[in-house]
Amino acid sequence: MLRQSPQKINGNFKGKDIISFDQFSTRDIKNIFSLVPKMRKIALLAKPSKILAGKIIVLLFYEPSSRTFGSFSTAIKQLGGQTVEIHNPQEFSSVAKGETFEDTIRVFEAYSDAIVIRHPQKGTASNAAAVAKFVPIINAGDGTGEHPTQALLDLYTIYEKHEKLDNLVGVLAGDMLNGRTVHSLIRGLSLFKKNTLYLLSPKQLKLSKSDFEDFTKRAIKLVEIEKETDIPKNAHFWYWTRVQKERFKKLKEYEKVKNSFIVTQKLLKKYGNPNLILMHPLPRIYEIEKEVDSDPRAIYLKTEIRNGLYVRMALLKLTLGII
Amino acid sequence: MLRQSPQKINGNFKGKDIISFDQFSTRDIKNIFSLVPKMRKIALLAKPSKILAGKIIVLLFYEPSSRTFGSFSTAIKQLGGQTVEIHNPQEFSSVAKGETFEDTIRVFEAYSDAIVIRHPQKGTASNAAAVAKFVPIINAGDGTGEHPTQALLDLYTIYEKHEKLDNLVGVLAGDMLNGRTVHSLIRGLSLFKKNTLYLLSPKQLKLSKSDFEDFTKRAIKLVEIEKETDIPKNAHFWYWTRVQKERFKKLKEYEKVKNSFIVTQKLLKKYGNPNLILMHPLPRIYEIEKEVDSDPRAIYLKTEIRNGLYVRMALLKLTLGII
Amino acid sequence: MLRQSPQKINGNFKGKDIISFDQFSTRDIKNIFSLVPKMRKIALLAKPSKILAGKIIVLLFYEPSSRTFGSFSTAIKQLGGQTVEIHNPQEFSSVAKGETFEDTIRVFEAYSDAIVIRHPQKGTASNAAAVAKFVPIINAGDGTGEHPTQALLDLYTIYEKHEKLDNLVGVLAGDMLNGRTVHSLIRGLSLFKKNTLYLLSPKQLKLSKSDFEDFTKRAIKLVEIEKETDIPKNAHFWYWTRVQKERFKKLKEYEKVKNSFIVTQKLLKKYGNPNLILMHPLPRIYEIEKEVDSDPRAIYLKTEIRNGLYVRMALLKLTLGII
Repeated sequence: MLRQSPQKINGNFKGKDIISFDQFSTRDIKNIFSLVPKMRKIALLAKPSKILAGKIIVLLFYEPSSRTFGSFSTAIKQLGGQTVEIHNPQEFSSVAKGETFEDTIRVFEAYSDAIVIRHPQKGTASNAAAVAKFVPIINAGDGTGEHPTQALLDLYTIYEKHEKLDNLVGVLAGDMLNGRTVHSLIRGLSLFKKNTLYLLSPKQLKLSKSDFEDFTKRAIKLVEIEKETDIPKNAHFWYWTRVQKERFKKLKEYEKVKNSFIVTQKLLKKYGNPNLILMHPLPRIYEIEKEVDSDPRAIYLKTEIRNGLYVRMALLKLTLGII
Repeated sequence: MLRQSPQKINGNFKGKDIISFDQFSTRDIKNIFSLVPKMRKIALLAKPSKILAGKIIVLLFYEPSSRTFGSFSTAIKQLGGQTVEIHNPQEFSSVAKGETFEDTIRVFEAYSDAIVIRHPQKGTASNAAAVAKFVPIINAGDGTGEHPTQALLDLYTIYEKHEKLDNLVGVLAGDMLNGRTVHSLIRGLSLFKKNTLYLLSPKQLKLSKSDFEDFTKRAIKLVEIEKETDIPKNAHFWYWTRVQKERFKKLKEYEKVKNSFIVTQKLLKKYGNPNLILMHPLPRIYEIEKEVDSDPRAIYLKTEIRNGLYVRMALLKLTLGII
Repeated sequence: MLRQSPQKINGNFKGKDIISFDQFSTRDIKNIFSLVPKMRKIALLAKPSKILAGKIIVLLFYEPSSRTFGSFSTAIKQLGGQTVEIHNPQEFSSVAKGETFEDTIRVFEAYSDAIVIRHPQKGTASNAAAVAKFVPIINAGDGTGEHPTQALLDLYTIYEKHEKLDNLVGVLAGDMLNGRTVHSLIRGLSLFKKNTLYLLSPKQLKLSKSDFEDFTKRAIKLVEIEKETDIPKNAHFWYWTRVQKERFKKLKEYEKVKNSFIVTQKLLKKYGNPNLILMHPLPRIYEIEKEVDSDPRAIYLKTEIRNGLYVRMALLKLTLGII
């Protein structure tokens, strides 16, 4: 669509690009969330929906991502739309011959009703949106940039459990320095009131100074902690991410902290409460022990994934739906 | 689904994993076969079926297989279902980062109504089934393990022609030692009565001792032969497979036998009868001469492939169909 | 279908292979074009068409081509058909094991209602058609051979603007020696009356002697020109293609001509007229400057691409449509 930077949604999603979480007001977020129960119903129904009937949506994936690809492909098909799936266009002859990114986008917008784009480079989705004249662009992750539907599904998962997005206490654990999903979640929760987040990470992986300053200007309380004994017992959710060994200069320092950043039954018993939910953006490697999977509070492998599907369906309905 | 080893079907396919041919009783096999005429009709009709309406089935292919992939993709679409197609997930970022096979399966089951899995490693489909809690797993070939729908289509092709699966005489030719499809066919026919199979192969490629012992305990008569002059003239079917040169230690031995294991018009004329069918699991390289393709008994390039489609449609209907 | 060389259409497309532009008479071309408005309407409608309902069409792409792939995939889905998409079958196990091209075609025709084939090697589509016994083959480009739907969309784009295909003046610029699309367009326009084409190219990239002789036997007037000052001001269309530096033996000669073969606002102002259209088969690299994109006469990035979609839809309807 013709525009300079991603437009604010302001209650009207129809035909707009979805590039950044910053486009959403709290009301927009609530709008999306209010559609989730209906989307879940559609996904479980045998009868396909007609919400995207006759719509062709290009999935333009410059890097493989089975999870996000599968989720968008499923969401579109559950709504009765169809996909044209392009994997790794950069290896295709036209691009190899030197076709610009801009021309590639304009080619695919000529075929389709929308383009869902995934790209390893920050800013690409926004560039695509600046080029596309006729159809909306939906950002499915642009490198270290944004992945707005991931942020939405994380927020929704908390909302679904606790029926609110304010007055929450959360623990974010792992890599605060580089974690894109962690940053999005902080930004998301700061739109609402009186939330407190405990950021559990080794020194080396604390928020960068600039991120810390940026976030503390917002309406959110951040408490940086370094030891598991600092975990508050009244948390509504734990959001766990991976601490990578290779981020440490000294192996000894890694050895010292590594066990504080692995969720075990013991850790859950000691610091958790019956009401919390244990989240993870996935892929999970070793930072949550397998024995924890069967705990009813562990919702990363089923509820979160399905919420990702429903939230994407809701967003597609609002942006492209004909009914 | 929650289970330890593949469940017996026992007349009820609904929601069950399809991992191994051993899950089927003769009655289950007949159930599948009885649906084939209806499936053929659906495939030829212009109106899409609603048997899988609203269903999303993930095709999770860890190795490429155009034939099996195409057949399952077509079967699902002919029944009105939709596919989410994932090629080579092991190259995708999540798996590359170290995500376990188990987590990958649980991610895809959260999106879908079933997972059709193809994997180069034996036992993988069964592992997937042990992990998947909510949707059935269908084995589309796990290396040297099983490929139950291939076995079904071979049996059906014989059944369609001869209207019975007992009192048959068959010739299985080529590599008895390593041939997965040959082993499945022997196992399949041993479920029925009074079948005799002549196993034509060079010495080096005879059944292993353990396979021979296993098979001869079953209700089937096996006759190992080494020369084309031993081919019985009353065979109901020839099931030809490839003899690979590289399996021989001495080239001379290969040279001695190689011509006995190629189907020519001459061979068909000398040892065949008007009523037999010439089958091949494909790909066929040189072991059936091209001139034979036009013989009406040569059914590998059309009838067998289409039967594979119909048998898969029937199995999907029984396992997942809503009507 | 059983046949030796591509059959003339002669007013009846149903079930025929589409291999070469030479199969079409002017009446056949007009038939296709007369359907385009209806196809456009279908593409814009929310309700999916039923013209290809229940049809499965295999897209068998031996080389990647995002543009043609996307166009055919979209065309089929807009008409209510379904695709089975096979990328790079040559890397798949069956073909890697030595399966012949002929067997691959026969496997896929057993699943499908038609095969759209793309292959880097000239003559492959025709070979596929000679093998396929039951379903039509549609050529989506066979190397330096043909790409009949590209030729159709170029002709249609001119026809749509000028409402005729005779008495036209056109400028074809760039590489006349190697340009497949240029040759097709000359051949296409020579089916109609009193067309004049100015072929603007550096000496090194003029038509080959044999092509020139072939074309001048046809009912078309060709004028070879070498300088932009020779561009006629009354052209109905400019059809621009790329001049590749590496085609020149002497860099100096390239330097001398290169600026004559780049479309700029200035060039358009000096030699263009308000009524012409500026076409390009894409990908466009640098031979049309970006500033030209916003000129209303520049139709390569939207109108041509969409016409490609509509023309393919029309052809599929005529060849395979059930209504």
